[in-house]
Formats: sequence, C-alpha cells, structure tokens
Amino acid sequence: MAPVRNARVVFNSVPTGYPEPGKTVVYDDSKTIDIENVPLNGGLLIKTLVLSIDPYLRGRMRAPEVKSYSPPFTIGEPLASHGVGVVIRSELADVKPGDHVYGVFSHEEYNVRKSSEGLKVLKNEHNLPWSVYVGAAGMAGKTAYMAWKEFSRAKKGETAFVTTGGGPVGSLVIQLAKLDGLKVIASAGSEEKVKFMKEIGADVAFNYKTTNTAEVLEKEGPIDVYWDNVGGQTLDDALQAANVYARFIECGMISGYNTGQKPIHNAMLIVGKSLSINGFIIGRLEHKYNDEFYATIPAKLASGELKFTEEVTTGLDKVGDVILAVQKGQNKAKAVIKVADE
Amino acid sequence: MAPVRNARVVFNSVPTGYPEPGKTVVYDDSKTIDIENVPLNGGLLIKTLVLSIDPYLRGRMRAPEVKSYSPPFTIGEPLASHGVGVVIRSELADVKPGDHVYGVFSHEEYNVRKSSEGLKVLKNEHNLPWSVYVGAAGMAGKTAYMAWKEFSRAKKGETAFVTTGGGPVGSLVIQLAKLDGLKVIASAGSEEKVKFMKEIGADVAFNYKTTNTAEVLEKEGPIDVYWDNVGGQTLDDALQAANVYARFIECGMISGYNTGQKPIHNAMLIVGKSLSINGFIIGRLEHKYNDEFYATIPAKLASGELKFTEEVTTGLDKVGDVILAVQKGQNKAKAVIKVADE
Repeated sequence: MAPVRNARVVFNSVPTGYPEPGKTVVYDDSKTIDIENVPLNGGLLIKTLVLSIDPYLRGRMRAPEVKSYSPPFTIGEPLASHGVGVVIRSELADVKPGDHVYGVFSHEEYNVRKSSEGLKVLKNEHNLPWSVYVGAAGMAGKTAYMAWKEFSRAKKGETAFVTTGGGPVGSLVIQLAKLDGLKVIASAGSEEKVKFMKEIGADVAFNYKTTNTAEVLEKEGPIDVYWDNVGGQTLDDALQAANVYARFIECGMISGYNTGQKPIHNAMLIVGKSLSINGFIIGRLEHKYNDEFYATIPAKLASGELKFTEEVTTGLDKVGDVILAVQKGQNKAKAVIKVADE
Repeated sequence: MAPVRNARVVFNSVPTGYPEPGKTVVYDDSKTIDIENVPLNGGLLIKTLVLSIDPYLRGRMRAPEVKSYSPPFTIGEPLASHGVGVVIRSELADVKPGDHVYGVFSHEEYNVRKSSEGLKVLKNEHNLPWSVYVGAAGMAGKTAYMAWKEFSRAKKGETAFVTTGGGPVGSLVIQLAKLDGLKVIASAGSEEKVKFMKEIGADVAFNYKTTNTAEVLEKEGPIDVYWDNVGGQTLDDALQAANVYARFIECGMISGYNTGQKPIHNAMLIVGKSLSINGFIIGRLEHKYNDEFYATIPAKLASGELKFTEEVTTGLDKVGDVILAVQKGQNKAKAVIKVADE
C-alpha cells in the first residue's frame, strides 16, 4: 500500500490574546505515512479517532521560558491533547491491533509511539461513543469527579456555586453536588446552557452575561462550596458570598487566559471566613481515583443516570477554530474533534 | 473601703486609616468601683493584670454594618482583648478568690462577670510571668501552634517562609518549623527582629524593608509552606515562589489593615501549582488542640526550649499608643499592657 496522508496541526506562533486559527495553529496536510512499513522499533502505530479541545490548552501556547504546570507546546511541532485512537500495528505485548486506547495524543492522523506508557486500553463495556472517553468519561469527567471527591467535603443541605455549569466539567459537578444533597447555584454564558443546567438539576441557573453574579449569590447564598472555572471578578464575588469554612475548588480561571488575569481584591476574606482553597491539576489526583472513576462513571453515563452533552466537529483542520470557540465560550458543549472513523 | 478608680479604655470613633490614640480610643479614669460591695449577682469580680494588644484588633474598630469574623467594638464602650486577671471575689463554685484566669477581658481595671464562661483558670505550674499567658502561652502561641499542626503538613527537608517572624506568632512558627526539620526563610521589619529570628533558628532572615522579598524567595525557594501574616505583595511573591503542592497558612494580612488591601495578581498559580490555602481564626481550632497546647507549650517556654520575647508597657492609659505601634510594626516583640500588680 502506498503512503497515505498524515495531516497534523502544528503550533505556529505564541498568541498575545485569543489564539488565531491559521496563525497560532496551522493545519498541515503535506506529510504522509506508510502504514504497513513504517518502522515501530518495538512500539505501536495508532490511528487517531477523536481529540479533546479543552480550555487549559491556551496555557500551553506560551513562550518556553514561562513556567507553568504543563509544558509549553513547541513551535513547529504538532499540538497534543487527550484523544482516543485505534491500534493499527503493535510490537508490544500489552496492546494489540484493534485495541482502543486513551491518552495524550499528538495532533496527527497517525501516531507512532515507542511504548504504551500513558495509554489506557478502553474496554468500553457500556458501548459509549469514543468521543465520550475524552469528555464525560475522560479528562473532563475525571476533573469533576476526582476534585469533588477530594476537596468538596460536601454535606447534605449545603449550597454549592458552580461556574461554567453548562460545560463538560461544570455539568458533572452540578450533578455530583445534587447527588450529595446540596442546593446548587450554577452559571454559564448562554440561555441554552442555562436551560441545560436546569435540566440536570441546578436549583438556580443563570446567564452571567445578563445577570449580576454578586446579586444572585447575595440572594441565594451563602455558599459552602465554590467550583471555580473562571477566576477574576467571579472569584471575588464568591469570596464575598462564602460561608465560614467554605471550600473553594480552583479548577481554572478562563476569564483571564486570553486577556490577562484580573486581580483579586477579597483575599482577606480567606482569613476572616476560615476558607479552604485548593487548586489542582487532574494528573495529580488520577492515581488515587482512576479505578473507582472507570468502575462507576461510564456506566452511569451509559444508563443516563448522569447526563452529558458534546459538540463533535469533524476534521482535524477544524482544530484551530474549535480552540478559539472554547476560549470564547462559544462551544455549546464538550468540544471534540472527530479525526476519523474506525 | 471607699470606691476606687476603675479606669477604662473606650472605643471612641471608627478610624479611617491608622488608629489615633486619644481619638480612636480614649482613656477614661472617671469611673469608680466599690470592690467590697459591688453586687456580683452570682458572678465574680476580677482585677485585670495584663492585656494583650494584637494586630487583629484593628478589624474590630469598624462600623457595625461591616461584617467580619469578630464582632465590631461598640462606640462608647470599652475595648476588649485577651488578658489575665486575678479573682477578687467569687460567687461561683468553679472559681475562687486568688485564682488567675485567662480569657477576653474588657479594658477596665476591674471586671464584674456573670459567669466563668470563656475563662480558663491558669495553674501556672511552670511559674511563667502572667504576661506570657497572653503571648507565647496564650492566643499568639495557640495561633502558631494549632494552625501549624492543622495545616502545614510539614515534611523534613521542605522549605517554609514565615512573615512577621520577629513577632509572637511568627517567632513560634519559625521554631516549630525548625523542630519539624524544615529550612526556614523568615522576614521582619527591623534589624533587631532579623537578629532575633536568626537566634531562634531561621536559616535565612531578612528585613523586608531593605531587602527584596521576591529576590530572596527566588534564590532560597521554592517554598513548601507559607505562613502569611501580611498579605498583599508578599502574598503575590509567595505564590510566585511556591513549589507545587505548597500549603499557605493564611493567618492575617496586616499590610492592608490600615491602608486598604492590595489586590492579588497571581491567583492563577493556585491552580497551576495545586496549592492548598487555608485561612483560619484561632477560636475555630482551640477545641481540637487546647489540651495538648497547655500540656506542652508552657513547659517548653519555661525551660527555654522554645524562645519568646515580649514588650511590656505599664499603664492602661498606654493602650492607644501600643495599638498604633502594633499596627505600624513598631513594637519590638509581643505587645502586652501591664495594668496592675497583683
């Protein structure tokens, strides 16, 4: 068989504000790969099926001298994000052709990897679409589940405030909080997301673009648990509305990723209210909760006990557009790129 | 016996910046008390011996409509702070004349109290001066000991950064951190305090007024535990210098008590570094650690195993001056007002 196209998405330049499709990242279809003959050197060849587009990717689009929790992307090299692929060839004992694997994938149609390190073979007993394994049953779902377990110390009758409640992380947090018996206040940036948040059980759901967050919290709080995906003014509002002993789960601060983080003015309330504020990166919780996550969450997603939404866009060439949409909050649900059918 | 003077210190007006002696608080010696005949109504009469002057008192000098963790002082009424007194008369079964008691005292030479609620009878087996029971063996010492136990998760070989390390709380934190095997970086606002911090074991001690905090932390960090008594720019510097998984103990933010809190710019690092930030009010930890504190700390203070300093000023009329000195960091050690001899 002749070599086939192996298109990829390359990190082209560090953005100063929002990432620009075609400038920040560039789709490149000039490469090819000889699927049957490419040397594996003891490794494996994977065909990429789906890729996850997440808010945190903006943080990797930076100059290499800026330190952060995740390594910067390299100019001229492909992006990388969580994905699911199918194994085409394997010289490894623990992975065989036809297996579906989850892990961090290079943004290429085909990947040669030296080992199975960082890859999880998905059994998919519940017959979920593969896209779900990069969303509610993947990194996004783990983020919600593991940090809620680790940090919320939720007690029945308490009140939680969840930001980006229409997204893949926030929507699962809303449902976990309701299962724990909390009153849930949830915010998002569109009427469609507000409607979805109500459907999945939020007691109070509002559009932060048209409703004043501080006023909602003043009326519906105080809050005992705050799930922060946005930072900035909303974090200040949550500090103001916090109950004594409240727990803040700091998952992300997307309000500042592209336009600079707004300063926080209410930090003194951390002392006055005996607050507990925990930041986290999901990779640091996975060793503790991975088994229980896969044992429980995919089944609940398949049965409908836990609800999720996703917005699947077909084509590796759409990565740049979808990255921008996610940074602007214009995606309607968990953003997934479908790269190929099986 | 004729009535005797019962001088007091009255809260006179809400300060806008630093508290002003004679304006914010006023010494009033017009009152008298008939020690032998004042009706106790089943309670007790206490003669005030020492009173503690602490940074947090500034927070109680506010308009009553401003909410905070401690109630505001009432205009026209005496101040209150931790103190030790000797019981003169008692109609209670659990407290007898001659007992020394610790608790929150009204700023008066003599106090009639309805009950012994909130008072602890001090046995003083180690023969410490009573002033120590409002400092290293009192609220300040408890603050250091209990929060370090509760939140530091200190491991040998880690690095701690302690602010206001020359003060009663910070100096004990430095010593507890050294006992736990940490490298200790400590800051204070005078050369005298820097010298003291070195004497009690700080590995790196500096005067933040003449040395750049960020540069010290860049060189000597990263830091695993941050003891924050100051907030503002120093908190931002600590966020910048924090190691992953660092624990921040938020005890106070005196840099903003009189001039307004400076905003915090590095909050996003809470996420990126998986930080754990805990605010606290000592009253919320006492039930858990009070017995072990009194069983261990006074003995170590008496033996010299733990070192402390204090600056005792004689005279209830000096309260206003000492409050201002503490807010400005001009006190040389734990500030105590000696009201009377036994």
